[in-house]
Amino acid sequence: MGSNKVLLVDTFLNHMVDTKFVYEIGAEFARIFAETRPSKIVTVESSGIAIAAYCALHLQIPFVIAKKYYSSNLPKDVYSAEIYSYTKNTPANIYISKDAVSSSDSILIIDDFLAYGSAVLGLTRIITDARAGLAGVGICIEKSFQPGANELISKGINLHSLVRIKSLEGGNITFMP
Amino acid sequence: MGSNKVLLVDTFLNHMVDTKFVYEIGAEFARIFAETRPSKIVTVESSGIAIAAYCALHLQIPFVIAKKYYSSNLPKDVYSAEIYSYTKNTPANIYISKDAVSSSDSILIIDDFLAYGSAVLGLTRIITDARAGLAGVGICIEKSFQPGANELISKGINLHSLVRIKSLEGGNITFMP
Repeated sequence: MGSNKVLLVDTFLNHMVDTKFVYEIGAEFARIFAETRPSKIVTVESSGIAIAAYCALHLQIPFVIAKKYYSSNLPKDVYSAEIYSYTKNTPANIYISKDAVSSSDSILIIDDFLAYGSAVLGLTRIITDARAGLAGVGICIEKSFQPGANELISKGINLHSLVRIKSLEGGNITFMP
Repeated sequence: MGSNKVLLVDTFLNHMVDTKFVYEIGAEFARIFAETRPSKIVTVESSGIAIAAYCALHLQIPFVIAKKYYSSNLPKDVYSAEIYSYTKNTPANIYISKDAVSSSDSILIIDDFLAYGSAVLGLTRIITDARAGLAGVGICIEKSFQPGANELISKGINLHSLVRIKSLEGGNITFMP
């Protein structure tokens, strides 16, 4: 199942996807966040896209895939934020078209993992730049032993994590009580 | 709408996603390829993931996201293939876990664009390495003026493109007859 830091979920969540299971995850996020009335979902490519796609289907709203590279597939006017990829140990930028989020939007952020929270915090900076609102943050697996969750909660962000992991020490998964 | 080579679809397909529309694209691929009885869908991260997710939902099969980077989120045993990214003008590798495809699989490849066919051809090499079968290739937008489609057809691959573009010259979209 990985090391003391990495939880491998490649067999059902972020590489080979168990369609029915991830569809139900999307449905659960839709149920949790329906009352916040999000107008759009935003996720960072690429592990959260399938979850976002199914959640958006349930909520009947569009979703936006923040890009990790600026390429010719994006328009010229973009919001960007610097994040740090702890998986790849490199700083990176994320990009969202200025046409994709506006001040009339209330954004639901969806992602597979929350560890240091760098990607989510980068998205919240873009949402602030766009003067959009933040409906909440939905995470499949929160590594509660890393600082991201506490940092989001300390900022007053409406965070819901489906699974909260206290420790992966010794290769054993210990859940939060 | 982009240059003579690039067609921007960031407002509905590969950046901000029109959920209902892309869901229907997934349904259409499911209808086209149902009789080939695929056991899994494979796509390359990240623009094809949403389409693959909806198609897999209709076909009730799992899907696999080929990764463009080898990271700690993948297991040790992977298939890999070298491809060339014409969007980024760099060679790259794609990776699929050896646990994700096997000789009993019949694979449906789904992607948003087909231009030079580098990503699809890389996936077919991995499918061959895994001794799996290839049910077909479903593409949203084929740039018929670039060589990928003809190369796939010349290999006898069951290619279905929903939209076939003859030319983007002068910023005008001309469709194939």
